[in-house]
Amino acid sequence: MTTGPSTYFRPEHAAGLDASTRELIGRRERALGGAYRLFYREPLEFVRGRGTKLYTADSVEYLDAYNNVPSVGHAHPRVTEAIATQAALLNTHTRYLHGAVVDYAERLLATLPPAIGHVMLTCTGSEANDLALKVARDATGHSGAIVTRYAYHGVTLAAGALSPSLVGEEAVEPWVRLVPPPHPDPVAFIDGVRAAIAELDDAGYGVAALFVDTIFASDGVIPGDFLTPAVDLVHAAGGMFIADEVQAGFGRLGHGMWGFDRHRIVPDAVTFGKPAGNGMPIAGFAAVDAVIDGFGSRQRYFNTFGGTPVSVAAANAVLDVLADEGLIGNAQRTGDLLEERLRSLADESPAIGDVRAAGLYLGIDIVDADGRPDEARAIDIVNGMRDRRVLLAASGERNHTLKVRPPLPFDAADVERFTSALAETIAATDR
Amino acid sequence: MTTGPSTYFRPEHAAGLDASTRELIGRRERALGGAYRLFYREPLEFVRGRGTKLYTADSVEYLDAYNNVPSVGHAHPRVTEAIATQAALLNTHTRYLHGAVVDYAERLLATLPPAIGHVMLTCTGSEANDLALKVARDATGHSGAIVTRYAYHGVTLAAGALSPSLVGEEAVEPWVRLVPPPHPDPVAFIDGVRAAIAELDDAGYGVAALFVDTIFASDGVIPGDFLTPAVDLVHAAGGMFIADEVQAGFGRLGHGMWGFDRHRIVPDAVTFGKPAGNGMPIAGFAAVDAVIDGFGSRQRYFNTFGGTPVSVAAANAVLDVLADEGLIGNAQRTGDLLEERLRSLADESPAIGDVRAAGLYLGIDIVDADGRPDEARAIDIVNGMRDRRVLLAASGERNHTLKVRPPLPFDAADVERFTSALAETIAATDR
Repeated sequence: MTTGPSTYFRPEHAAGLDASTRELIGRRERALGGAYRLFYREPLEFVRGRGTKLYTADSVEYLDAYNNVPSVGHAHPRVTEAIATQAALLNTHTRYLHGAVVDYAERLLATLPPAIGHVMLTCTGSEANDLALKVARDATGHSGAIVTRYAYHGVTLAAGALSPSLVGEEAVEPWVRLVPPPHPDPVAFIDGVRAAIAELDDAGYGVAALFVDTIFASDGVIPGDFLTPAVDLVHAAGGMFIADEVQAGFGRLGHGMWGFDRHRIVPDAVTFGKPAGNGMPIAGFAAVDAVIDGFGSRQRYFNTFGGTPVSVAAANAVLDVLADEGLIGNAQRTGDLLEERLRSLADESPAIGDVRAAGLYLGIDIVDADGRPDEARAIDIVNGMRDRRVLLAASGERNHTLKVRPPLPFDAADVERFTSALAETIAATDR
Repeated sequence: MTTGPSTYFRPEHAAGLDASTRELIGRRERALGGAYRLFYREPLEFVRGRGTKLYTADSVEYLDAYNNVPSVGHAHPRVTEAIATQAALLNTHTRYLHGAVVDYAERLLATLPPAIGHVMLTCTGSEANDLALKVARDATGHSGAIVTRYAYHGVTLAAGALSPSLVGEEAVEPWVRLVPPPHPDPVAFIDGVRAAIAELDDAGYGVAALFVDTIFASDGVIPGDFLTPAVDLVHAAGGMFIADEVQAGFGRLGHGMWGFDRHRIVPDAVTFGKPAGNGMPIAGFAAVDAVIDGFGSRQRYFNTFGGTPVSVAAANAVLDVLADEGLIGNAQRTGDLLEERLRSLADESPAIGDVRAAGLYLGIDIVDADGRPDEARAIDIVNGMRDRRVLLAASGERNHTLKVRPPLPFDAADVERFTSALAETIAATDR
């Protein structure tokens, strides 16, 4: 696990907090224990949200440039209404017929390549990637997996095994091979995939799947179009290419619903999660028909809370709002504007290195005077932005990339508020 | 996987269905694929529920004696209200402070033995058991697990490895050992645990945990008080005893919140799920402090949708309703009444073999004239009860045990309706 400085609260920060916050943190620590973390040196407690804003109990407003789960906006009234209406009627499971889950599956499949014909619903992205690995092993007869060096694909034992950013590189299972992310050197990524395939074959595992978060969020946010050769190599080795769209999916990157669209590839399977229900626990796995039907002929699948009427009501409302409010186009336009502002800021400020952007997923590298990753300053900036009432986080293997992925209704005024707070914070953290 | 006859819908049943049901099933099959199942030869489509009743679009009422998730009753207004109110305000995650999740954790811990001091929240029972295995391995330094021969602990790769009833005995991983369930012979269970410990030690895995569903739901519903010697053996081998309360927890068995209460043991850890949010995806893992803090010192844990404000609002409302409506006492009283009626029915009907009951979790063995398990008739009874508008299912290794676990507000009138439908159905399936 990560050890160095971090954006998480630590006990030594408690001294500066007011008594009631300290007390709540103490109760939380006693009840939830030592594996939980809180954001920020001074943790935040929100009581309501709307659109791109979050509010504390005394109505202090924060601009949310971080949370990708409430993707159509915090407490969106159409989603809220759909949840409330359905919860008051019925919330059973997929072993009774229910039209809405079929409608949802059809709507989702209509956004995916024609070869992907079935979708299975889980509650979390972790469950989706766990299921994807299980099905890929069934379909290929292989057991190995390839992921990027700082990948995150989830928190179950199996999804965690695909997540060196969670468990640490040294704890990676023998059937997992790590490859360099495609930034700064896309060729190293391709070469890594080639070598990993050979190693997995030699070790007798074979390659069941290459898992790629199509925006490489935990590797530091890497947009681009460089996956085709890697996918070809994996196919030649009898493996599947699985696009993990938990971060990139549902229009965040602009120009379409899915992150893999930018790579001009057709994945064998797709996993999705976070934004699907705007906070309701719905996620899933979609794949080419033969892969899922083959699995289904050997094993049944049932997820008690997967695709329940209430979760599906929220998820259908999310698709409605995405379309009716034009949020995918907004992600592209506002993302372009934000990128432009950040590039201007980078011209004036040597603390900003590379800026990488795809729609409303942006990575901003924070560097020192010699252009080297500056994790300590990135963390100071995350906390400084919090003090200026703007939420973001740091990410990547060196933890020096500011990760920006706001709710999709982020608008031009939000962009100005964000960039002026960032300019101030960079100035204030100059040492 | 199970192959023989089953209570699931199969394509050959389609001929008898009306056109619109056939069409919905066809669309469902095309969109969700071959791993999904539907209950009954004639699947049911519900549009609303209330208390212990479910309703079709044309307002035909079914008595629900099967669904343990909507434990305080379908669409309970207090739970619905809590969900609607919170969804309209805020639904973020546990990395910001939120008082309600701390309140919930404290309330839950107050129902557990004092040694169990921390609780971690997931979305599903599968994630809870997956996390329990991960933490138990961390705490013990061992990797092996012991489960009963027809256990079900979940659907992730790791929880599935603990679930021979899902993956089949032959597919069990080498680090898992299966033991006979404690019915009909509790001694075989204890001897099995002893042998499994020795085998896991010999194989170099050691025993990280014995996982027990404290009502042995998938083993055919086995109440009793026979776990102490097995727990002692596991402790002596340096392993943990993990009580899987996903089925038994939250008062269903009467006389207290948890299934392990009946066994007069203190588990090292508890997992819970299904009824916790009355349908909202909330579940979790509670353990002695040192186990969780040790894990937390080596690995962080974050579940995006685990313990969100909306899930926790539902879960807090469930605890309120359990207390205010006296549902645990009702589970005991109504369960006792139902058991009494079933024993009377068994006296008249040779088709009913053993009846096992703990509160509102009951198993009714269906047997042939020679007292042998009669799976085919059990399945006919499940479908015949459906035709009489009462919902239940079959369970157990031989699939001949009727599994009865209704929403907890089940009352004396529901008992009479259930038993008269069962008497009719048994008569109608006499061959």
